[in-house]
Amino acid sequence: MSSDKVLLDYGSGGRASQRLISELFVKYFANPELERLNDAAALKLNGTISMSTDSFTVDPIFFPGGDIGSLAVHGTVNDVAMLGAIPRYLTCAYIIEEGLPMDDLERIVKSMGEACKEAGVNIVTGDTKVVPKGMVDKIFINTTGVGEIIADPAPSGDRAAVGDAVLVSGTIGDHGLTILGTREGLSLESNVQSDSAALNHLLVKLVQEIPDVHVLRDPTRGGLATTLNEITVSSNVCCELEESNIPIKAEVAGGCSFLGLDPLYLANEGKFLCILPQEYAEQALEIMRADELGRDACQVGTITDANPGKVILVTPLGGRRLLNMLEGEQLPRIC
Amino acid sequence: MSSDKVLLDYGSGGRASQRLISELFVKYFANPELERLNDAAALKLNGTISMSTDSFTVDPIFFPGGDIGSLAVHGTVNDVAMLGAIPRYLTCAYIIEEGLPMDDLERIVKSMGEACKEAGVNIVTGDTKVVPKGMVDKIFINTTGVGEIIADPAPSGDRAAVGDAVLVSGTIGDHGLTILGTREGLSLESNVQSDSAALNHLLVKLVQEIPDVHVLRDPTRGGLATTLNEITVSSNVCCELEESNIPIKAEVAGGCSFLGLDPLYLANEGKFLCILPQEYAEQALEIMRADELGRDACQVGTITDANPGKVILVTPLGGRRLLNMLEGEQLPRIC
Repeated sequence: MSSDKVLLDYGSGGRASQRLISELFVKYFANPELERLNDAAALKLNGTISMSTDSFTVDPIFFPGGDIGSLAVHGTVNDVAMLGAIPRYLTCAYIIEEGLPMDDLERIVKSMGEACKEAGVNIVTGDTKVVPKGMVDKIFINTTGVGEIIADPAPSGDRAAVGDAVLVSGTIGDHGLTILGTREGLSLESNVQSDSAALNHLLVKLVQEIPDVHVLRDPTRGGLATTLNEITVSSNVCCELEESNIPIKAEVAGGCSFLGLDPLYLANEGKFLCILPQEYAEQALEIMRADELGRDACQVGTITDANPGKVILVTPLGGRRLLNMLEGEQLPRIC
Repeated sequence: MSSDKVLLDYGSGGRASQRLISELFVKYFANPELERLNDAAALKLNGTISMSTDSFTVDPIFFPGGDIGSLAVHGTVNDVAMLGAIPRYLTCAYIIEEGLPMDDLERIVKSMGEACKEAGVNIVTGDTKVVPKGMVDKIFINTTGVGEIIADPAPSGDRAAVGDAVLVSGTIGDHGLTILGTREGLSLESNVQSDSAALNHLLVKLVQEIPDVHVLRDPTRGGLATTLNEITVSSNVCCELEESNIPIKAEVAGGCSFLGLDPLYLANEGKFLCILPQEYAEQALEIMRADELGRDACQVGTITDANPGKVILVTPLGGRRLLNMLEGEQLPRIC
């Protein structure tokens, strides 16, 4: 592009918008449907469709382990996949602040293109708005995804059943602590970074090999505790969590204790909860552990009928503590 | 909700977010899939799917003839329909500035619910982010839509052919002038208001009754002139427009002349271009004029091979003027 900053007319719908599309988006997102440049994409999809949307406003836009672009792909790909679906297509809508360095935009677009390749999805249509300086902070991105549901019955938040095992695919709190740490200018231990990742390939393996996965859910905003509360309410069951089984990196635990944060409420962007009949738990853990993204998977609890709609944390000494849904905003702009 | 302003924790993913969803979104968008409250929606759709996305940043958020909510529904419904499709489902993602009056949010959500009902679509999943004061201007909304393509072959921007008629469904420039006028605090003539409307029912009638519609496109950002330029480039044909046939309300022409704007470059949100074989032009115009939203439809030009990739305006005196794509940003935040 002729300017090293994003100018207002890049979002005009006119000639400058066309250049931005052809020189940047088509370059990194190359696929035949996008290149038709219609206002809508024509897509072939089979069976029941999983559809999900998320707007990403994360601050900072670049952080250890990712950026707003890769996060925007991972977040939506994961949500689509949580219904037991193969994600296929994404839309991408940018809202950009006038004056954003073109280098930053290109870095983000490139990162999205790479994340799409890894996840096996195509960005097929999009939208770009540029708003005057001060009307938005740098860049916000919406992605919306569609995929084909292959699990039957499909996992759903209201299907957790008494006796089910509660598995988590890995360590908790990495993304949330990384974002807050970066924002506060803390120099975190070198191995604390966002876990942002596309989980779809692992999830597809799970629903293909396990006869009936009851719930799949990624504990993003509000963290493990809030997500489990949503599920126990939807399913009208109780979740009893063994505190000592919850995987947390020592550095994350240390950082949380320093900053006064509870890792159980911190966002994750590359982890999922899997709730399924106890008889399939071992098989599911094997599948998860065979994948780099599920290496630290373990069973953290069970579904019971003790207190329907509640999550109970069982401490190492046998104490029982009610784990509420997040109250108040622990971390704005975490994703 | 307990507060009369949107608070940061309404976007936390925690308890306050849940309340916002159940008390506001589920109230106005009521449908079974949304009420499952999974992170993704499971949808039944037949055949080839049309998918489109748009983020809306219009300023002001309330304007004569609509608001950011109705506009967000109309804009995406129309884009989905332009492929000859019946729009079925929308996603809706809000980015809200901390402190937005709850009354404004409710008014917008209510307006979206009404617009969906009229268009016959359901909002099936969504996302809400609240960002700290000053990080976004009031509220931005993304909607992404999917629908079922019923036209075969489907209309597409690259299918305009020499000899085709170029029809427009009504008067040009109403939305753009209304937004700019409102923003500038001008008191416009009482009958100048945004044309924002869902065109899908009319478009479906057209593609069902006309054997082959080559192109459908709504002239939003960049206006009639820019949209026609996109089409002539994609199809490698020339469009010759009869200036005297282009329908423009006298008040809009007057307002444009007062503000130094060219109505051919102003955004429309309830109009479409229809390019099809000349033999079907009369039938198409009859269908359009029988619908309130196509009352002022007329033929404005023809597709020729005179200057491939160009739009030529033929003036009442027979002069021929090249009509370029929009250069620069005439109006930021028009939609």
